[in-house]
Amino acid sequence: MVSDKQPNAFPNSTRIYVPGSRADLRVPMREVTLSDTRRPDGTTSPNAPIRIYDTSGAWGDPAFHGDVEKGLPAIRAGWILERGDVEAVQGRALKPEDDGYLSWKHAETAQRATSRNRLVQFDRAGRQVLRGKPGQRPTQLAYARQGIITPEMEFIAIRENLRLQQVREEASRRDALSFQHPGQSFGAAIPKEITPEFVRDEVARGRAIIPANINHPELEPMIIGRNFLVKINTNIGNSAVASSIEEEVEKMRWSVRWGGDTLMDLSTGKNIHQTREWILRNCPVPVGTVPIYQALEKVNGRAEDLTWEIFRDTLIEQAEQGVDYFTIHAGVRLAYIPLTARRVTGIVSRGGSILAKWCLAHHKENFLFTHWDEICDIMAAYDVSFSIGDGLRPGSIADANDEAQFAELKTQGDLTKRAWERGVQVMNEGPGHVPMHMIKENMEKQLEWCHEAPFYTLGPLTTDVAPGYDHITSAIGAAMIGWYGTSMLCYVTPKEHLGLPNRDDVREGVIAYKIAAHAADLAKGHPAAQIRDNALSKARFEFRWKDQFALSLDPERAQEYHDETLPQESAKTAHFCSMCGPNFCSMRITDDIRKFAEAQGVDEQAALAKGMEEKSREFREQGGELYR
Amino acid sequence: MVSDKQPNAFPNSTRIYVPGSRADLRVPMREVTLSDTRRPDGTTSPNAPIRIYDTSGAWGDPAFHGDVEKGLPAIRAGWILERGDVEAVQGRALKPEDDGYLSWKHAETAQRATSRNRLVQFDRAGRQVLRGKPGQRPTQLAYARQGIITPEMEFIAIRENLRLQQVREEASRRDALSFQHPGQSFGAAIPKEITPEFVRDEVARGRAIIPANINHPELEPMIIGRNFLVKINTNIGNSAVASSIEEEVEKMRWSVRWGGDTLMDLSTGKNIHQTREWILRNCPVPVGTVPIYQALEKVNGRAEDLTWEIFRDTLIEQAEQGVDYFTIHAGVRLAYIPLTARRVTGIVSRGGSILAKWCLAHHKENFLFTHWDEICDIMAAYDVSFSIGDGLRPGSIADANDEAQFAELKTQGDLTKRAWERGVQVMNEGPGHVPMHMIKENMEKQLEWCHEAPFYTLGPLTTDVAPGYDHITSAIGAAMIGWYGTSMLCYVTPKEHLGLPNRDDVREGVIAYKIAAHAADLAKGHPAAQIRDNALSKARFEFRWKDQFALSLDPERAQEYHDETLPQESAKTAHFCSMCGPNFCSMRITDDIRKFAEAQGVDEQAALAKGMEEKSREFREQGGELYR
Repeated sequence: MVSDKQPNAFPNSTRIYVPGSRADLRVPMREVTLSDTRRPDGTTSPNAPIRIYDTSGAWGDPAFHGDVEKGLPAIRAGWILERGDVEAVQGRALKPEDDGYLSWKHAETAQRATSRNRLVQFDRAGRQVLRGKPGQRPTQLAYARQGIITPEMEFIAIRENLRLQQVREEASRRDALSFQHPGQSFGAAIPKEITPEFVRDEVARGRAIIPANINHPELEPMIIGRNFLVKINTNIGNSAVASSIEEEVEKMRWSVRWGGDTLMDLSTGKNIHQTREWILRNCPVPVGTVPIYQALEKVNGRAEDLTWEIFRDTLIEQAEQGVDYFTIHAGVRLAYIPLTARRVTGIVSRGGSILAKWCLAHHKENFLFTHWDEICDIMAAYDVSFSIGDGLRPGSIADANDEAQFAELKTQGDLTKRAWERGVQVMNEGPGHVPMHMIKENMEKQLEWCHEAPFYTLGPLTTDVAPGYDHITSAIGAAMIGWYGTSMLCYVTPKEHLGLPNRDDVREGVIAYKIAAHAADLAKGHPAAQIRDNALSKARFEFRWKDQFALSLDPERAQEYHDETLPQESAKTAHFCSMCGPNFCSMRITDDIRKFAEAQGVDEQAALAKGMEEKSREFREQGGELYR
Repeated sequence: MVSDKQPNAFPNSTRIYVPGSRADLRVPMREVTLSDTRRPDGTTSPNAPIRIYDTSGAWGDPAFHGDVEKGLPAIRAGWILERGDVEAVQGRALKPEDDGYLSWKHAETAQRATSRNRLVQFDRAGRQVLRGKPGQRPTQLAYARQGIITPEMEFIAIRENLRLQQVREEASRRDALSFQHPGQSFGAAIPKEITPEFVRDEVARGRAIIPANINHPELEPMIIGRNFLVKINTNIGNSAVASSIEEEVEKMRWSVRWGGDTLMDLSTGKNIHQTREWILRNCPVPVGTVPIYQALEKVNGRAEDLTWEIFRDTLIEQAEQGVDYFTIHAGVRLAYIPLTARRVTGIVSRGGSILAKWCLAHHKENFLFTHWDEICDIMAAYDVSFSIGDGLRPGSIADANDEAQFAELKTQGDLTKRAWERGVQVMNEGPGHVPMHMIKENMEKQLEWCHEAPFYTLGPLTTDVAPGYDHITSAIGAAMIGWYGTSMLCYVTPKEHLGLPNRDDVREGVIAYKIAAHAADLAKGHPAAQIRDNALSKARFEFRWKDQFALSLDPERAQEYHDETLPQESAKTAHFCSMCGPNFCSMRITDDIRKFAEAQGVDEQAALAKGMEEKSREFREQGGELYR
């Protein structure tokens, strides 16, 4: 059974909700309470609480007593219906092949044979499938173009501004804003304040997307675009070799707890439909899939047997379930396939390989390319966003930025325009394995050729030589490309290239990517991204250990590492740390220097003029020993 | 007792020695043997072995049966003596305060009271201390300027060229060199071949250093400079809170096993002298220290009691032992100290804090600054290199690139010139905490102000928000600044800011930094840095799992992660992996695509013209099912 137990709450943290313009619009955030600064002279001063962007959904609210068998509350249901452009439909009937069985009888037999997948059918409690009314395209892009600010857009504006609220608060305090580095932007710039109108405008221009299927009302809206916080995606998915539905649902909750902004379900093998259903009904973040994976299962893994009809049916199946974005490898065109022949690692994208195999076997153009407009029309009816796949991405440093990769990227740009014409939101997938000096070219070409649609990259990995550590090889590339303008970074776990990630790997991967995304936000000059760094560093400097832990991306790890060396409770309030021991600490000395220097005035010339010689005598007389 | 057990040898690896121009010059390398490529049609082709730069010294040679109580062989002893410019001297007598005791009696009592530090006195077996003859400066810089190519320089040229030898070998094989990306250099360029003369020239210009104290003959020469492979430093050191001599020696061997290029002993507390002696006698890489740490112990931790005489005596003590480079914080000038007062994290460098405290207490200029020329003369007599400290480096994102930091950097440049005038080799230490967009400015200013002396940076950390993961926050900055021109990267472990690193932390830190250094080598266009990436990726693509593990920076981790999902021995030769399962694998499909496309010719126009329709029919007839 899926466990309903909440993971441990983060320390010193409270779930708060920032209200919007309507009662059913409340934006969740995590607020970290900080202790007072205590100076050696006994005086204290308070530290304002810090608000943190929170992806954990209701699962992160201690007041929520939900049940994974019932799913999360449908917070967007009212917003979707009140727009009046969607209707409840019967929907496609579930077929045995959706879960990889030849017949219902086979499915039953398989269920009896295994105790691993007991939770087969999620009970929707009568909720019906929604679809755009004939002629309607109920997409956030269509609304944005019409000048409509949806509740989703307002939700996002509040969510993205959480740090700005803090800047205002901090601004009234001692020179907090003087610590703000301007950042370096490569192109469009982030405004000082994210307004709902700004969100709408960015979506209307195609420069940002709000992946939010009308059949995924449980979702808390978020935005992917380079004038917003850099987001990260996590991948989960059962495979033929291992894992079960329970594990996948748990991995999803685990991933959003640590900060995953979206989630891709890359399941293969049996029970794909049901796994996805359980994930969607319990998932507060957008869910993406690669529909060709399931289509391939329906033809027993024989790529050449794939047909447009099977693929189309799979798209509708998944759109009706509520998948928020589809990776579609329509850019793997027949003519580009021979370009990969002399590569060191050929085609490494699974979707790219499937399509390449199909193209060669039939010697026909990729059917996803030839059916593009129909795909767009299906996706528009549910507001599924495109994540146009990069099936020819480089799988090694040697293959980076080659002809095959860039030929596909150009086609991704053409497909982007066509999708926009049909009202569908679009982002583009990018590499892969790229050495540092070739990363920028990827971003520049994508911006130009794909008309500023959001870029969504896998790393890139900056070297091939460290399997087991590819969360690090790729966090380097991810941070850089995020700075250059990539909107979302697809995480890589330490198991990349080697095996299937477990819970620990998911955590390592998410944190490595939160680091990359935050480093990019700082470098881009996102307003107030630096607030959390400043608060944590101030806590560190003042030996407020518990505040330092609480402000960390991973408070548990930080405290655990601290406690390995100094387990005593007293060490968490002590004015020293394990690196230098109780008799010596550079931060402590600096504390004295600061007071001393401040008494002199900050300007060194003035300080010297005032006669520091005298002051220094005084200083020695006042106590001599500074370690007090 | 210190264990003499060798750590496990790396898989498929042989220790080889490349001979130089003289019998006593043999350069150790690790050679990884690779298995043959097996094609689906049954044909095979061999894969050339790959040579890897090896820092493990004799400890990495299975034929070496050494004993840590005897130390490593003094491979440089003959080279040093034959130059005729050094003489054996009585040397400074050991004092009880060198190990932190008031008297010999105190030391004995302490030794009896604890069983932890049984190995007190290392037995040098009569080896005498060496020093430059009066008027002689036996430094690699002085030799280089005189046009002398020392055996150390030749050793280094062979060592740095190991990959180039492979390029030659690969060049004769199928288009291996076409995978070479040109790289992007910011300034001086790396030649296609590293000759002994090039090494000499770079050292003579001050653009590279060879840290090699004449009293550390056990050292295998290496070079730090931006036209060579990027190096990494690891820190170890006991502290008042934890650790022992045995642990430190073991950590040293552990660090060089994983690839640490130099090692800093940052011990504080008791037994500093003896810990260092044990490390030096067993250490095949250059050892650095921060002499002010030991000097501070000698005045019982009271910075204001430090004197030039105590410091000078400590310098000589350490130089006679064989320390290869000293971090000296002479740039922390009195006038700069007030500039730190409004920082978020003041002065975080331990050395910087000690000096700042001394300056303020006496209201005098930093005595390291005022005695600079005398320090140079001492260091020249033993060929100790400078690592001019950055005592005012930023300890948080907020403090990056501020006035205090750059004022000191400029002074580092002035001190560099003065040291060069006295024949001493110099590198400069750099930050710290710097957001991505401000990293390049550090490199540019250092190159300009410090006249191209090698830069040696700590990270930099690109965000403050991830304690517990600062090996990652800093590997991002380290890779970037390495690309921009930093010569050596000081590693950061996951315990940074939180506690003392254990063995696992050292391993994590070293690997993260090997990644950063290698990513930088690739981006700089180091000749053939990419050979290892290509060999590993080719092995990956061909499902040569064991070759992939053996070529990894951490073969044990790679195999362990693989085996977690697929433990069977057969899975290491299987043509699939755990990500996609036995029925589907993109790499396998690509293998077929490649053969197919190659048969058509790589040019897509030609391929289309030849009539792929026909070929595709043939392809289906030949087997249809591609998963064979």
